[in-house]
Amino acid sequence: MTLAATAPAPFAKVSVIGLGLLGGSVARAVRARMPGVHVTGYDASADVRARAAQIDLADTIAQTPREAVAEAGLVIFCVPVGAMGAAAATLAPYLPADCVISDVGSSKASVLKALGEALPGHALVPAHPVAGTEQSGPDAGFATLFVGRWCILTPPEGTPHEAVARVSAFWEGLGAKVEMMEAAHHDLVLAVTSHLPHLIAYTIVGTASDLEEVTQSEVIKYSAGGFRDFTRIAASDPTMWRDVFLNNRDAVLAMLQVFTEDLTELQKAIRKGDGEALFDHFTRTRAIRRSIIQMGQDDARPDFGRSDHKPA
Amino acid sequence: MTLAATAPAPFAKVSVIGLGLLGGSVARAVRARMPGVHVTGYDASADVRARAAQIDLADTIAQTPREAVAEAGLVIFCVPVGAMGAAAATLAPYLPADCVISDVGSSKASVLKALGEALPGHALVPAHPVAGTEQSGPDAGFATLFVGRWCILTPPEGTPHEAVARVSAFWEGLGAKVEMMEAAHHDLVLAVTSHLPHLIAYTIVGTASDLEEVTQSEVIKYSAGGFRDFTRIAASDPTMWRDVFLNNRDAVLAMLQVFTEDLTELQKAIRKGDGEALFDHFTRTRAIRRSIIQMGQDDARPDFGRSDHKPA
Repeated sequence: MTLAATAPAPFAKVSVIGLGLLGGSVARAVRARMPGVHVTGYDASADVRARAAQIDLADTIAQTPREAVAEAGLVIFCVPVGAMGAAAATLAPYLPADCVISDVGSSKASVLKALGEALPGHALVPAHPVAGTEQSGPDAGFATLFVGRWCILTPPEGTPHEAVARVSAFWEGLGAKVEMMEAAHHDLVLAVTSHLPHLIAYTIVGTASDLEEVTQSEVIKYSAGGFRDFTRIAASDPTMWRDVFLNNRDAVLAMLQVFTEDLTELQKAIRKGDGEALFDHFTRTRAIRRSIIQMGQDDARPDFGRSDHKPA
Repeated sequence: MTLAATAPAPFAKVSVIGLGLLGGSVARAVRARMPGVHVTGYDASADVRARAAQIDLADTIAQTPREAVAEAGLVIFCVPVGAMGAAAATLAPYLPADCVISDVGSSKASVLKALGEALPGHALVPAHPVAGTEQSGPDAGFATLFVGRWCILTPPEGTPHEAVARVSAFWEGLGAKVEMMEAAHHDLVLAVTSHLPHLIAYTIVGTASDLEEVTQSEVIKYSAGGFRDFTRIAASDPTMWRDVFLNNRDAVLAMLQVFTEDLTELQKAIRKGDGEALFDHFTRTRAIRRSIIQMGQDDARPDFGRSDHKPA
């Protein structure tokens, strides 16, 4: 527990809409770190609601949109970014007039537009906690997902400062470090640090499994040479990622263009046998990982500390 | 310890040439799992030899090429694939006539050629243990690196069966599972499962660190969204990887061509807003990871079981 957990909770009642990996983690984290705060969970899927109730994911699992947001001080949309607008429209008639709206979507300009249009008049503080795993569904979440991770807030101009401060305190209470950013800049930064890596991983895993000369069984057997790292990312939720690429299209395509140029350059170095260019490039990239570890954004142990490197 | 460790050791004296991550791991594994076998370590660098002696990496740290291979039954070259020929030529005058030659190189056709030319008349059983981490140097190795991993042997036609059987028993003794393959096919398989993933990771990490619109500090801060996975691979040893790309050029370029075509297809789907094509692709790739985990080739826990997901 950090000190933040003992500060007064910024909201007495929080509604989590969408109970997958992110929504489930928010609900668990609130229960673990904000004693006295009531968390209500809701999901459009009856199966997910039933499972959430079974594993006691929230104080209340609501069965209707009305119940989902009753008396809520904060409503967080934790659905795929393409579903934000529809989810907001469903809840709009029942929202308390003074409740603050937030979300956890991976692209922000499109979400800002969708939530703003569906819920005019509400204080809107979009959020993106940069955290997750390749797993999905109500069982995938855990209370410590946000600890030590960054959460980026992208409130539009004119949002009351008090609403921003309370959402900020909320995420700090869950263990995250909060940063402010323009939605458009967020979308560019995340296109590089998250969306492009996912696109590349999805591509190479598809490439490897479709080859004629190398069997899928060989790909799987010898994946420890590097490939298996990519399969983790390429196992991420398909609906979520379809929506990310469709909703952050321009930034993703721009970054992909730069990546393709860089790849062509390394390809040329290999073709021409230019060992010096390869060596220089590979030396430079090594330094980036050191910085990430120094910033506390990854595990310093070799191979991420994978369990197969523990003594047998 | 597996049963193999209690079988009679296939060689009484083993020489490890090159004391980096792989050589150091072989030396440690022999000492841990093959009691009674004498392991001699040698490295062309005096600094590495001094460090290896300091951390007691082998029974003997040889100071000269002559001492390095004296009475050796098996000599394993653990140097970058581009350095194999030179290392072999240095040791050639001192090799016992009946010693078996092996290596741990990541490309096999070029190594087979280099070692065959430098050491005519010796039984040659090239090996590639598909295991490693992003770290390098004499301190990086560990005895369990090969446990449960595949080791691919690519003996040329005409190699005595007995030599192949002994090298095979040696790797099984270190905990690996052994597979036989033609060198050319090995190079194609590893181009997909290892070399192309490394090239892609090196590229994207370079791309991200050179952008104008997004600062390097932002890339580092928000790397938990996926990018940090790539930085691990792109932190691998630059000399080793320069050599891999130069020595397995044709297979790497062929695989890169297929990858680029596939990437162009996903790019087109994003540009055209074809959500169905994206969803279908992302659903298919998810299955590959399940197979890798079922085959025991990766950690099943979310995020590889990274320590930052343990309760704080």
